[in-house]
Amino acid sequence: MAKSPEEEHPHKVFGWAATDSSGSLSPFHFSRRENADDDVTIKVLYCGVCHSDLHSVKNDWGITNYPIVPGHEIVGVVTKTGKNVTKFKEGDRVGVGVIVGSCNTCDSCQQDLENYCPKVIFTYNSHYHDKTKTYGGYSDMIVVDHHYVLRFPDNLPSDSGAPLLCAGITVYSPMKYYGMTEPGKHLGVAGLGGLGHIAVKIGKAFGLKVTVISTSPAKEDEAINRLGADSFLVSTDPAQLKAAMGTMDYIIDTVSAVHALAPLIGLLKLNGKLVTLGLPNKPLELPIFPLVLGRKLVGGSDFGGIKETQEMLDFCAKHNITSEIELIKMDYINTAMERLAKADVRYRFVIDVGNSLTR
Amino acid sequence: MAKSPEEEHPHKVFGWAATDSSGSLSPFHFSRRENADDDVTIKVLYCGVCHSDLHSVKNDWGITNYPIVPGHEIVGVVTKTGKNVTKFKEGDRVGVGVIVGSCNTCDSCQQDLENYCPKVIFTYNSHYHDKTKTYGGYSDMIVVDHHYVLRFPDNLPSDSGAPLLCAGITVYSPMKYYGMTEPGKHLGVAGLGGLGHIAVKIGKAFGLKVTVISTSPAKEDEAINRLGADSFLVSTDPAQLKAAMGTMDYIIDTVSAVHALAPLIGLLKLNGKLVTLGLPNKPLELPIFPLVLGRKLVGGSDFGGIKETQEMLDFCAKHNITSEIELIKMDYINTAMERLAKADVRYRFVIDVGNSLTR
Repeated sequence: MAKSPEEEHPHKVFGWAATDSSGSLSPFHFSRRENADDDVTIKVLYCGVCHSDLHSVKNDWGITNYPIVPGHEIVGVVTKTGKNVTKFKEGDRVGVGVIVGSCNTCDSCQQDLENYCPKVIFTYNSHYHDKTKTYGGYSDMIVVDHHYVLRFPDNLPSDSGAPLLCAGITVYSPMKYYGMTEPGKHLGVAGLGGLGHIAVKIGKAFGLKVTVISTSPAKEDEAINRLGADSFLVSTDPAQLKAAMGTMDYIIDTVSAVHALAPLIGLLKLNGKLVTLGLPNKPLELPIFPLVLGRKLVGGSDFGGIKETQEMLDFCAKHNITSEIELIKMDYINTAMERLAKADVRYRFVIDVGNSLTR
Repeated sequence: MAKSPEEEHPHKVFGWAATDSSGSLSPFHFSRRENADDDVTIKVLYCGVCHSDLHSVKNDWGITNYPIVPGHEIVGVVTKTGKNVTKFKEGDRVGVGVIVGSCNTCDSCQQDLENYCPKVIFTYNSHYHDKTKTYGGYSDMIVVDHHYVLRFPDNLPSDSGAPLLCAGITVYSPMKYYGMTEPGKHLGVAGLGGLGHIAVKIGKAFGLKVTVISTSPAKEDEAINRLGADSFLVSTDPAQLKAAMGTMDYIIDTVSAVHALAPLIGLLKLNGKLVTLGLPNKPLELPIFPLVLGRKLVGGSDFGGIKETQEMLDFCAKHNITSEIELIKMDYINTAMERLAKADVRYRFVIDVGNSLTR
């Protein structure tokens, strides 16, 4: 008979889990493996609340294996290292993002694209090499293979830096891959949420002109005066859309809901690139004429590999890029999830795990 | 009062035109301008019958201005040059493709992408700088600004080389722009018609592995044994599609009808690129999950600029790439159009204008 989550490993761990698709989280006792030669044991200090956490606890994608402890924007401090670990030592501040394992042998892994490995092991709702389930960062400690642990730069705050581990790399990676970093070029950021607001900051750090494309006129002041965007476009206003036709070189589309691509494609110049990061559950309509006549492309991208995640953290540290956050206590998580579902957060909830997760 | 087509210019020209959306072509007398300082006068020898000619004579795109003389795959011989023309002399064999003018000042023109110039002048169904209509290559002579005239390499046959001027550049340009030329990579060519069969040959010349993706099992033998494809995939066979999932680096999609992109996207590997060249008149369904999870892209491309068209002609000459053609007389054109509408041609009709266009 399989052992219970609390008994299968030697380390007793406490966290919060959802146990069914109601998505409601509650205190949960489970366990983690002993620190092996390649492992780093981490005391969790902060964990961001990603929109994927919400999708996962609600089983929106139909792949959730309950109980689930979410959380893949983890910042903590090293408490133990295995004998093969040279990059980290006790007391170091480190991060863990979306993945904690991969096959290490496939083409993707060989190209430092572990995130696209067919056998990738996610930080939660996945199975580790030993067949036991993975549990995320809404918990007091975690044991992770050192290859998947990130150095957390000294000047990056633990709380507002945590969301970079998913939201940050998810916008940084496509900008690098699709060549959306040429200074002076014009970037549109569609959707001003957890991903979008970091895309604005990273875009500015690359020297781009950045326009926020949003359905919410109320966000204009904040987009420009707080986040540093150059301009703001209300996507439901046909006159504004028309005036901006053919003015953008790149668009990062962070909208997850089913939405029209045609207006966004229309905003692009010749050779313009639209990269979609959201995961709408139905196909979108793709108009072909403007794609052909303007040599435009629509591409996708799914977070990033470990090497590039480290590069992104160092880039953000250098440019003082952090997430705008609302710091919450662990027992506020269900309210936070409800607010997140209504996009009622500017722009990321981060759980103060170290100070609020009490048994 | 505007002058008649036959009287507006000094040179009397004879060709075939469609006069209404029945699309039926018949003998037509019109005129062309005197050869100016930048012009080249060309006696037309051959003209390819492009699918765009069919769309245009039928007014499928709603932009046809009758009467229309189609034809933008023109090979001929120079009979006169203006005093500013140094590249060409009387007796030279030359080509004229899809465009005969552009603004020469915009960003696109400055980047040798005249085909994307907002003021591009098409070889037919367009208006020239002098406001008179342009008429294409289904005619005995044409006067063209030398910038838009191509050198026709010595070893390229005039008849089977003619279709390269549209079909050739339309597949060559995206392969270069989107980086689909790395030797050993796997190219899928969806649709084996005028564009597709040249894509197979150009793909092989770049050193790619080429798989034809077609709904017609009957084309397999020809695709492999005549055109040089490495393999053949019947796109309506779920078992074949499934077996080929995730095996292709690039796909050139030449299908003009509304069709499903999802199976093609599924054939792509990580980082795979699907370039669509056809112009379906409705949006296609774009599934987002596979785009994001496989970092794939869907891009468009619309023929190419003059400099790249010359590069393509030289490339095809070097690699002995020509179109497979069925040579027809001018008075067969209406039958040819009917057969083209049923895809009953392997793979391009070319009109023997020089020997069959008689008044």
